Amino acid sequence: MEIARPYLLFLGDVADSLAAKTAIGIVDWRKDWCIGQIRLQGCAADTGLPDMSIADGAAAGAKTFVIGAVNAGGRLPEHWIDSIVAALEAGMDVASGLHVRLGDIPAIRSAAEKNGRQLHDVRHSTTSFATGKGTRRSGKRILAVGTDCSVGKKYTALAMDKAMNERGYTSSFCATGQTGVFISGRGASLDAVIADFISGAAEWLSPETDDSHWQIIEGQGSLFHPSFAGVTLGLLHGSQPDGFIVCHEPTRTRMRGVETPLPTIQQVIDLTVQCGRLTNPDIRCVGIAVNTAALGDDEALAYLAKVGEQYGLPATDPVRYGMEAIVDKVSAEFGAP
Amino acid sequence: MEIARPYLLFLGDVADSLAAKTAIGIVDWRKDWCIGQIRLQGCAADTGLPDMSIADGAAAGAKTFVIGAVNAGGRLPEHWIDSIVAALEAGMDVASGLHVRLGDIPAIRSAAEKNGRQLHDVRHSTTSFATGKGTRRSGKRILAVGTDCSVGKKYTALAMDKAMNERGYTSSFCATGQTGVFISGRGASLDAVIADFISGAAEWLSPETDDSHWQIIEGQGSLFHPSFAGVTLGLLHGSQPDGFIVCHEPTRTRMRGVETPLPTIQQVIDLTVQCGRLTNPDIRCVGIAVNTAALGDDEALAYLAKVGEQYGLPATDPVRYGMEAIVDKVSAEFGAP
Repeated sequence: MEIARPYLLFLGDVADSLAAKTAIGIVDWRKDWCIGQIRLQGCAADTGLPDMSIADGAAAGAKTFVIGAVNAGGRLPEHWIDSIVAALEAGMDVASGLHVRLGDIPAIRSAAEKNGRQLHDVRHSTTSFATGKGTRRSGKRILAVGTDCSVGKKYTALAMDKAMNERGYTSSFCATGQTGVFISGRGASLDAVIADFISGAAEWLSPETDDSHWQIIEGQGSLFHPSFAGVTLGLLHGSQPDGFIVCHEPTRTRMRGVETPLPTIQQVIDLTVQCGRLTNPDIRCVGIAVNTAALGDDEALAYLAKVGEQYGLPATDPVRYGMEAIVDKVSAEFGAP
Repeated sequence: MEIARPYLLFLGDVADSLAAKTAIGIVDWRKDWCIGQIRLQGCAADTGLPDMSIADGAAAGAKTFVIGAVNAGGRLPEHWIDSIVAALEAGMDVASGLHVRLGDIPAIRSAAEKNGRQLHDVRHSTTSFATGKGTRRSGKRILAVGTDCSVGKKYTALAMDKAMNERGYTSSFCATGQTGVFISGRGASLDAVIADFISGAAEWLSPETDDSHWQIIEGQGSLFHPSFAGVTLGLLHGSQPDGFIVCHEPTRTRMRGVETPLPTIQQVIDLTVQCGRLTNPDIRCVGIAVNTAALGDDEALAYLAKVGEQYGLPATDPVRYGMEAIVDKVSAEFGAP
């Protein structure tokens, strides 16, 4: 799935910023891919991009109308359909991360057909993946893993990709979730792939490349999460990472959505190495990324110092303190750019 | 997915027994669920059931016409469609394990609608699964795991279920693959489930039951297979087994379809215990099932004796030597029926 750029971001009339987190995530990481935003009356979210009409966006060269918001329940509100049809009529493709398939809505399907435009449902893969092979391929890879879901794996991978590029490495971000796909312009929602093809999809997502090229791969779930560990393991095997970063949220006590207690960082390192060796015998942990948002500055720095010492690894909060320390570790382990 | 019985087995005109292994598997384990077989001219397979016409089968009370054979490529040959339509016209449901969906073939879909019959595509789940929760549920469970794919996990689970029932336990077989679904009359092809729902589907497949009831769960893949380990891990977490049986084929040197070397039985035991503890802290290995088909009798017995001693566990070939030794172990570990 390759999504044409630039984007025009549609925020609908959502009631808060959280509901527009896809659009906000795109602007955080790829502002220069975005022409502007469209907000319906009553919209309480704002990406900071210029407000536009569909005609303005088309005139400014927008190629894809991205539905960057969800209403409660993940459904497509009836009154958003007019905007989507208008974007298709104006010559844009439409991309959505909603559960519903755009093509299942007759007005949208016929407008897309009539105007020869593409509909991208990033939650639903249209690619036919092969099963994973586990064969070593050239290029270097870093995977974000976690003690839980929703601990900052996407943010960590994006921040690592940015920091690697700034340090002079050739690096690219490989998306495995819907917001990530918009940010990379390519990828697959790994959680929506048929079970037999998880590792095959991960191999497709992080294909053979130059040995000097680093692919920084967005993680999914946790090997210790009883809902999603299968996805995490398939992603680990398929991405055959040289290095991985453990993402952690220190105030959490239970895995998200279930009663299972959180594993320790050490347990995650050990099981990731043990399982990851199947497809990359040299796999190693290169750092720990902690979401310290719930801690004060002193507390956060003390926590990172403690964790860093305990594991003998760089520990940072990517948002607060950047990824330099982990890039240093990669440089020490694998060589300068 | 609940498939009405008895079955009328359709073998088409396949060129050898291997192509009819689904039908043969059903007859091996559930002969009393089967009324007869239908073979087209040139069919080289034979389940040993009486040959019938569709009219004979309908008159004898067949409720489901089971496509128990595959042609090369897994496609549905054009000339099988007439038989399927005739079965629907005669009042039977139709069940298939082919990749193609029966309802995607217009003649079949319209015959099913006209006659109010059900079409079961066991490779394509129609159940909406929840994500796995990892919550402990009542009942006892045994899962077949393997050093590789295609090492006898289905056969082992079926033989264990039979042996447990014969010993006076209340036991049932839980299917996770297509042939298994026909044999149990219920289940889901786990490899065809959307990745996010693997463990949830496994929880659905082996639901809460009496604490005296044993569910013997068909395994899939291997934690050490780079194509399918994600499915295996989700199944392990979702089925939260009390005991597991390691299935092994001693002459294999590489994992099926890939270059990855085979793990040892010890590695499989260790990683299964390590990962399985997430949803059942008391998980333990109860035996080793070896497919010794490639070995002579003396060699097979010597191999089983060696493996049994090495791991301190009962080791048997379910086909040659039965499952008594492993039922003894279950009885010793968990109590007599």
